Amino acid sequence: MLEKVDLKKKLTKEEYEEKMIQLETKIGRLQRECQKLKIPVMIAFEGYGASGKGVQIGELIQGLDPRGFQVYAVKNETEEEKMHPFLWRFWTKMPPKGRIAIYDSSWYRKVLIDRFDGMTRPDEVESAFRSICSFEEQLTADGMVIIKIFLAIDKKEQKKRFEKLLSSKETAWRVSKGDLKRNKSFQKYQAINEEMLLRTDTDYAPWHIVEATDRRFATAKIYTIVVQMLENRIREVRESIENSGNRSDESPDISITTVADKRLRESVLTKTDLTLSYTKEEYKEKLEILQKKLKKLHGELYRKRIPVILGFEGWDAGGKGGAIKRLTQKMDPRGYVVHPTASPNDIEKSHHYLWRFWTDMPKAGHVTIFDRTWYGRVMVERIEGFCSKKEWQRAYKEINDMEYTLAQSGAIILKFWMQIDKDEQERRFKARQDNPEKQWKITDEDWRNREKWDQYEEAVNEMLIRTSSPYAPWVVVEGNCKYYARIKVLETVIRAIEEKLEQMKK
Amino acid sequence: MLEKVDLKKKLTKEEYEEKMIQLETKIGRLQRECQKLKIPVMIAFEGYGASGKGVQIGELIQGLDPRGFQVYAVKNETEEEKMHPFLWRFWTKMPPKGRIAIYDSSWYRKVLIDRFDGMTRPDEVESAFRSICSFEEQLTADGMVIIKIFLAIDKKEQKKRFEKLLSSKETAWRVSKGDLKRNKSFQKYQAINEEMLLRTDTDYAPWHIVEATDRRFATAKIYTIVVQMLENRIREVRESIENSGNRSDESPDISITTVADKRLRESVLTKTDLTLSYTKEEYKEKLEILQKKLKKLHGELYRKRIPVILGFEGWDAGGKGGAIKRLTQKMDPRGYVVHPTASPNDIEKSHHYLWRFWTDMPKAGHVTIFDRTWYGRVMVERIEGFCSKKEWQRAYKEINDMEYTLAQSGAIILKFWMQIDKDEQERRFKARQDNPEKQWKITDEDWRNREKWDQYEEAVNEMLIRTSSPYAPWVVVEGNCKYYARIKVLETVIRAIEEKLEQMKK
Repeated sequence: MLEKVDLKKKLTKEEYEEKMIQLETKIGRLQRECQKLKIPVMIAFEGYGASGKGVQIGELIQGLDPRGFQVYAVKNETEEEKMHPFLWRFWTKMPPKGRIAIYDSSWYRKVLIDRFDGMTRPDEVESAFRSICSFEEQLTADGMVIIKIFLAIDKKEQKKRFEKLLSSKETAWRVSKGDLKRNKSFQKYQAINEEMLLRTDTDYAPWHIVEATDRRFATAKIYTIVVQMLENRIREVRESIENSGNRSDESPDISITTVADKRLRESVLTKTDLTLSYTKEEYKEKLEILQKKLKKLHGELYRKRIPVILGFEGWDAGGKGGAIKRLTQKMDPRGYVVHPTASPNDIEKSHHYLWRFWTDMPKAGHVTIFDRTWYGRVMVERIEGFCSKKEWQRAYKEINDMEYTLAQSGAIILKFWMQIDKDEQERRFKARQDNPEKQWKITDEDWRNREKWDQYEEAVNEMLIRTSSPYAPWVVVEGNCKYYARIKVLETVIRAIEEKLEQMKK
Repeated sequence: MLEKVDLKKKLTKEEYEEKMIQLETKIGRLQRECQKLKIPVMIAFEGYGASGKGVQIGELIQGLDPRGFQVYAVKNETEEEKMHPFLWRFWTKMPPKGRIAIYDSSWYRKVLIDRFDGMTRPDEVESAFRSICSFEEQLTADGMVIIKIFLAIDKKEQKKRFEKLLSSKETAWRVSKGDLKRNKSFQKYQAINEEMLLRTDTDYAPWHIVEATDRRFATAKIYTIVVQMLENRIREVRESIENSGNRSDESPDISITTVADKRLRESVLTKTDLTLSYTKEEYKEKLEILQKKLKKLHGELYRKRIPVILGFEGWDAGGKGGAIKRLTQKMDPRGYVVHPTASPNDIEKSHHYLWRFWTDMPKAGHVTIFDRTWYGRVMVERIEGFCSKKEWQRAYKEINDMEYTLAQSGAIILKFWMQIDKDEQERRFKARQDNPEKQWKITDEDWRNREKWDQYEEAVNEMLIRTSSPYAPWVVVEGNCKYYARIKVLETVIRAIEEKLEQMKK
């Protein structure tokens, strides 16, 4: 989930101040409502060293009535705490109904710093994840709002901050040896954080990743998240009171735009560099080499019995078909199959939405390519209302679980998002309409979908972040130049296969 | 969950036939309703070899319309299936909406037989449990009814059945080498089954243990379970249609007595032998020896930093107080504490129901004794309606999870149920009323609770089965003779401590 985050986001001082005036008023009002409705709230701050947890908590409580919250700094366990199970100290620091508790690092310590430091033994990790999920599920089922915030900065930024702190006697003590060690082994520590995020990002207690390079941006985003989570719960509780016990299954969609602008939302797509391109000559030359290489690797896959799952998603006219064609052109047709995914038929509708994909998964040694995938659940089904909000929110974890299971059984899984911009799409639509050979490719529905571009963009951004994992990464393909896109797909598949073969040798 | 099951249950031919006439008519009607309402149903049969899975499936389908179900015999994976993740073959054998699929052994094979045979590597077990829970959660969230039936017989009965099968050429092939090996290592295989039951007994897909020594009893109980599960879901779906989208949070309680008599319910308590007793002399002699021994072990616990959690539940006047008194009489008072559990106060009510117990848990090396416990959730709160049906049904797993966490952190956990019969309770109540020194011990509420004896008995039986685990077992104490009861409690605690110390030496 971390890999896709754009850490460069920022706000100017003016933008920041304008937003904060609104947000601070709002959060104060919401806190009073929670008190009245007896809603308990836990806000957990996690993130890298020097990402600003302390500073951000300081900012957050500016907006809150000090009689209604409590901040806990979670450090190494005391002697007393060591003598209890690790969640014990959080049961003892739990807000009663109507109050807010804020944790400066939280119950995740056990599977993060302590794990990195070897204080959590490998065999304890599984049971810790299990305990954490059960802890959060129990509390939210009982009415707790759990807000989990993860502050992200990169290795370089972290190093810069440590150096600044170390340069003054007054702040040097704040950088520990452990901090420097984790900076040095940033990638290793990042993998631990990544696993934690993926395994504990649930519909009842989702993670919110906050880009923390710019302090102002982070503050505004944190306020926005807290406001949104509280608004959601307050509305649910109100409705359940109004329906006197008949709780509605559906909680209304609150758009984050009500409290802040588009920039505070997730955005993976905007950082795509669509100017990347190859000339026809470059393309032809690369294509030939890569296709030959893939053909050879395909044979290896078969001998080593490795299944490969490739999913293609993207804007209409984004170039999925062309990329799949170039990918498979030289492969032995007995060893791969392409499944186009249309709207589900009646038999498929009478099953779970993942059912039709499970039945099409490749067996060992085979390659299955999905032209559109199970991600329809969190895109078209979400936007067109074909499933409920609860259902698509639950789907992120369901999909991560499915891909985890497939990866555990040895599969290579890659998911491609074919990215083009809105102008390029228009050019391609028009070209299709003008070409009698290609007219079949363009329908009224394509034009209708195009009108919902912004809604799709929001859904796609959220999808890319919540479902990109080390075992099944999303690859955003810069697609304005078709040549570039096709080569990138081929290169990515080849690299993934080579890495897998390398791993198996060890 | 297996340990507490009474395998001796049976029905006479007459009782059986009378019940089955009702049940068969009922199940046929329910199947048609499911078809109409498009409810898909999966029925998984697990259990020991020769426990009668095939026979019972044969009986079950007698009541069903053959056009509406399909039976799958799940054997070793085919070559095709081996080349996919282990759940793949169940995705391909899934009933569409409105149909029933029955599995003769199921997706649990991976964590049962295959695990015993070493075909599932230890490091695969965790991820298999995770995949299974996620599989069932996804499907039930989508409307599937999952009915999981576990047929239990004991080692001796199994051996007898194998011998009978082996004695004839026509049936000998049905007993495999693996069957005989599992019979020989029955205890080891039982532990694997026990872990599976505890880790996958969820509110969305609960396990039903069926006592299978008597074939007739098992058939009637299986029918009863299926009828009940289908009735529940049909009612829910109906209500949700009536409320046109406004699903009620609460599903009404359907008592199993509507379809069969009390005997088909769980019953742990009825097999308690309440005639067990000691004379005063035997008692005094044993008491002195045991108390001395415990005192010594208490010191060891402290040095080895082992926390001990002892919970006491039982009928009013069941002898909890007396047993706790004798248990602690010679112990160093700095090393133990007794927490009496009353109705929650206002602060406690404003927290999760487990919160107050978490905060009282012993630290390493200390003993905490709870006089009444967190099990109030599934007894008094269930019966008095202080929590919703959903809440107490969820509580079994929540409690198992909490105890698992505590056990993982090294604690000894024992739970005592002080059992007396209704007549003995009456004698004790009257004796208290007649004795001015003891009048304070008896209140009007005690007499009111007594009127709900049957309801409590049902709740206690279910609790004992669903929450007895190898790491936190329930001990039913035969309590009509107070002397016997007190000695049994002391002996049990001493044995548990000795075993723990023994383990730690290894």
